[in-house]
Amino acid sequence: MKATFMYGAGDVRVETVPDPVLRQPTDAIVRTIRACVCGSDLHRYHSMPPAETGRPMGHELIGVVEEIGAQVGTVKPGDFVIVPFAFQDNTCGFCREGLHTSCLHGGFYGSPEVGGLQAELARIPLADGSLVAVPDLTPADADDALLASLLTLSDVYLTGYHAAHVGQVQPGHTVTVIGDGAVGLSAVLAARQLGAQRIILMGRHPDRTDLGVEFGATDVVAERGQDGIERVLELTGGEGAHVVLEAVGHLPAYEQAYGVVRPGGIISRVGVPQYEQAPIGFGSLFGKNARLAGGPAPVRAYLEPAIGQVLSGQIDPGRVFDRTVAIDQTPDGYAAMDARKALKVMITA
Amino acid sequence: MKATFMYGAGDVRVETVPDPVLRQPTDAIVRTIRACVCGSDLHRYHSMPPAETGRPMGHELIGVVEEIGAQVGTVKPGDFVIVPFAFQDNTCGFCREGLHTSCLHGGFYGSPEVGGLQAELARIPLADGSLVAVPDLTPADADDALLASLLTLSDVYLTGYHAAHVGQVQPGHTVTVIGDGAVGLSAVLAARQLGAQRIILMGRHPDRTDLGVEFGATDVVAERGQDGIERVLELTGGEGAHVVLEAVGHLPAYEQAYGVVRPGGIISRVGVPQYEQAPIGFGSLFGKNARLAGGPAPVRAYLEPAIGQVLSGQIDPGRVFDRTVAIDQTPDGYAAMDARKALKVMITA
Repeated sequence: MKATFMYGAGDVRVETVPDPVLRQPTDAIVRTIRACVCGSDLHRYHSMPPAETGRPMGHELIGVVEEIGAQVGTVKPGDFVIVPFAFQDNTCGFCREGLHTSCLHGGFYGSPEVGGLQAELARIPLADGSLVAVPDLTPADADDALLASLLTLSDVYLTGYHAAHVGQVQPGHTVTVIGDGAVGLSAVLAARQLGAQRIILMGRHPDRTDLGVEFGATDVVAERGQDGIERVLELTGGEGAHVVLEAVGHLPAYEQAYGVVRPGGIISRVGVPQYEQAPIGFGSLFGKNARLAGGPAPVRAYLEPAIGQVLSGQIDPGRVFDRTVAIDQTPDGYAAMDARKALKVMITA
Repeated sequence: MKATFMYGAGDVRVETVPDPVLRQPTDAIVRTIRACVCGSDLHRYHSMPPAETGRPMGHELIGVVEEIGAQVGTVKPGDFVIVPFAFQDNTCGFCREGLHTSCLHGGFYGSPEVGGLQAELARIPLADGSLVAVPDLTPADADDALLASLLTLSDVYLTGYHAAHVGQVQPGHTVTVIGDGAVGLSAVLAARQLGAQRIILMGRHPDRTDLGVEFGATDVVAERGQDGIERVLELTGGEGAHVVLEAVGHLPAYEQAYGVVRPGGIISRVGVPQYEQAPIGFGSLFGKNARLAGGPAPVRAYLEPAIGQVLSGQIDPGRVFDRTVAIDQTPDGYAAMDARKALKVMITA
């Protein structure tokens, strides 16, 4: 099969490798219908040191079950499934609490053992906990727009949803979303679903913020840094936003977040932090009792209701995809996203 | 009157100054029954640069109203009152939401304009929002233990309560309290009130942790740093605590906090941070979806029910006081707390 590997910053290659095989009786093999490139892949695309062995890439996938291990009971060959970006048993204490990304037996794709999902086939560990079938639908019955929206449930939309959920967005809230990438736009859509009254989107790419407005943003602030903070404070009567959804991961975005959060409000981060140290003392969070939340999204916890919302047409998060490439062209997809020529790139297999 | 001033690190003096007078029609003058020294005063006691003008000290007080301005309506001369450590109007949007320490018109004691509360008399701004009368009680009818418990409602107990409240302590939770000072012990008592099943107190002063056990701690961990983290993880089956109440304010205490918080759990800080930068990236908070909360306690929001709990004997937070000095001896009180010869020092006027 063809699969995608990264050998260093800017160096992505599609190679032919042996097909994956069942290793555990809880595994399944899934044949890819659609995969995609994530903003978090770009962090590595900027920083990965050169390596002799390529790192398997990709963690977002919809596909069809090809083969299951002896202990797999919830999906069967032929099922059209969504693959959450982390695998999990869906039975441990953390999974039962809805924090699947802390599953005691789970993990993430992209290691040499588990492989990546920007590939024609994938081995899915703990398949009963890590695959959810789309009810009463085959890929052939779904148009491209529906496939795109279902693919966002693997990560990007439900990462935006996680931000809004742990940010405790409520009807009537003013929400500021930092970042007009695919996660930020997803966070806008999710905040609107949760009833936010006002959604201020901080982003400076008009083609992206235009989609943000269609998703529900009521205001767009193109300024960044202190100018951006002042603009949001102006828009909120000097008080700031009840909830700030930070969908970038770089320190300046976090600095904007504590600048615009209302006293007592919540900053919810889902952009993977590219920093470890940051201000949290009296002058940033503590003095105004601002709260901090967020982390890797437990997509599995949110998946069934979100599938229903996509199938019913209530949400159309797949609009974040603006380019599709065949798997051989995956490196071009990385380059296009890195150059901001594409918002989010879908891969067909 | 006599009042307390700090002139630099370790340099606290009691001086005779003019009695405070009403400046605004919303002011009241209160005659001190009891005041006290706060752990946060000690941060300044360690770090204040020498100054020609003394800084007025103290922000915890119970007393009797002596005089009120023309616009004060909720208290009258003779009322026995508790003075929250911040003043507020109790009517603005933030006050109505229970975040009185972010009152649009409020502030803190200790400036040259407002003065400190380690004094025989105090001018209380916005008296209608900043004083709460103890119903049906005069100071003469209260014994020393009751006065001590009422005094803790000015700050220390309700600061511990704030930690537990914004930490969302619930019945069944495992809570770790970091710090065996008066705020930490208050946090133990508050966590018990909120139904915590297990309370692990991290502290290494047996006389203090003994009181913590009487307040409800089920386990005491004397180790600090990585050893302390490992001990708490051992006690919690490797998972950590649902809620961590950080009642110290120094960076190592915060580092312990993220080391022992359970995935998805909450770190609630009420020790005033003596740092601005700290780890919040993937390896500390983000990776496990740990949340961060806390800040200056909106004591006013919690005061009426807490007064009832003290008067009924449900809680006895005044046991954190282990020394009483007359106001002339206030500098000795600072020295005793600084040397850890006293847990918390009460001042009589």
